[in-house]
Amino acid sequence: MPKNLKAILFDVFGTVVDWRSSIAREVEAVPQLSQVDGELFADRWRSKYQPAMERIRSGSRPWVKLDDLHYENLNEVLVDFGVDELDEAIKQHLNRAWHRLSPWADSVEGLRRLKTIYIIATLSNGNVALIVNMARNAELPWDMVLGAEVVGHYKPQPESYLKSAAMLGLEPGQCMLVAAHNSDLIAAAKCGYKTAFVPRPTEYGPNQTADLEPTAQYTVVARDFIDLAAQLGC
Amino acid sequence: MPKNLKAILFDVFGTVVDWRSSIAREVEAVPQLSQVDGELFADRWRSKYQPAMERIRSGSRPWVKLDDLHYENLNEVLVDFGVDELDEAIKQHLNRAWHRLSPWADSVEGLRRLKTIYIIATLSNGNVALIVNMARNAELPWDMVLGAEVVGHYKPQPESYLKSAAMLGLEPGQCMLVAAHNSDLIAAAKCGYKTAFVPRPTEYGPNQTADLEPTAQYTVVARDFIDLAAQLGC
Repeated sequence: MPKNLKAILFDVFGTVVDWRSSIAREVEAVPQLSQVDGELFADRWRSKYQPAMERIRSGSRPWVKLDDLHYENLNEVLVDFGVDELDEAIKQHLNRAWHRLSPWADSVEGLRRLKTIYIIATLSNGNVALIVNMARNAELPWDMVLGAEVVGHYKPQPESYLKSAAMLGLEPGQCMLVAAHNSDLIAAAKCGYKTAFVPRPTEYGPNQTADLEPTAQYTVVARDFIDLAAQLGC
Repeated sequence: MPKNLKAILFDVFGTVVDWRSSIAREVEAVPQLSQVDGELFADRWRSKYQPAMERIRSGSRPWVKLDDLHYENLNEVLVDFGVDELDEAIKQHLNRAWHRLSPWADSVEGLRRLKTIYIIATLSNGNVALIVNMARNAELPWDMVLGAEVVGHYKPQPESYLKSAAMLGLEPGQCMLVAAHNSDLIAAAKCGYKTAFVPRPTEYGPNQTADLEPTAQYTVVARDFIDLAAQLGC
């Protein structure tokens, strides 16, 4: 087991929850969007996620929380899909679908086991309300919600990893990031974090090509959260 | 029941946990402090809490987290009690007694019930590590740790209440502060919060004179957290 490990921090979108299926299901449940392919819609919406944050990371735009970026992006996607008019209440409901994402089958049980020994916290770009509401809806038993909004920096900026560790009163080396994304883990490792890669090979659907395998050396590689818990002695 | 109530935020020291008995017990368990009256020591340590924060609230000192203020204050109290030398490791252990405070008998059960309907979060001047470690130790089932360190302001500064509500994506009127202290509740009410007074008549020991009764109009007055849960429909 890794030495001095005190806290396990988790990427959330894709790693803990299955955003693509959840968003597709919610889109297809909206009567006014019955002509829309939910998975295509989800993919298009998610494709605008990194560029929106990048404008903030680069300093060309002041801090905006993810709920608001999601809303701006939703309006663009609706135009892309030829949906000219949608009631504001429906748009708000759809935007909050990100607060209702479903966990992967192993997530809750794995987190419960890990929590018996380690502090478990989110280190997500999702804002606090989004992550708190998701946790209550999906029964994710976080000790703490850390990440972008709490520290004021979007991943993979180093401050997001370093300030999250500091808020737990820990050195980076006492923290482990769990993610299904190599880029996130590599950024965390550069900050001194321990790392765990858990592949989520259908996060982007059946034709996913990226992040199927670890592309660097990590502290742990696990099949899922239950395997991760077992490897970490829980 | 109060309309539009979504989240219940809690003062922690004194309201959720019994700092005086817990600190006294920990002080008396240190062999080098066997000559010290634990309750007097706890009272003296706590008496330096508000003045230390006041220097930060007034702007005469930049942000310092509570763990560090506690440590500075501990050094002063040791001098006051004539303890000239104490190993650094023992001082660090003693300072972290604040991370191990015991809850009042009704706290855990009341919080569990309230959590079934409402978001429950801390709104404490304790730093994140302190509150997270206390929660794990005492099984306090918070959805979120908010308050001073997350928002960068010590209560009763209005920012501490307003930014905590905003992080939950809520208006102040959708939040309720629960506290055993009239001054905290009055400050929260000024920010638009709903309020609940729960007396803790032995927080300051058997001779307590302050905060035995509500001194203003609050949304709810409850005997303890179980009564509060019942009054709020849980």
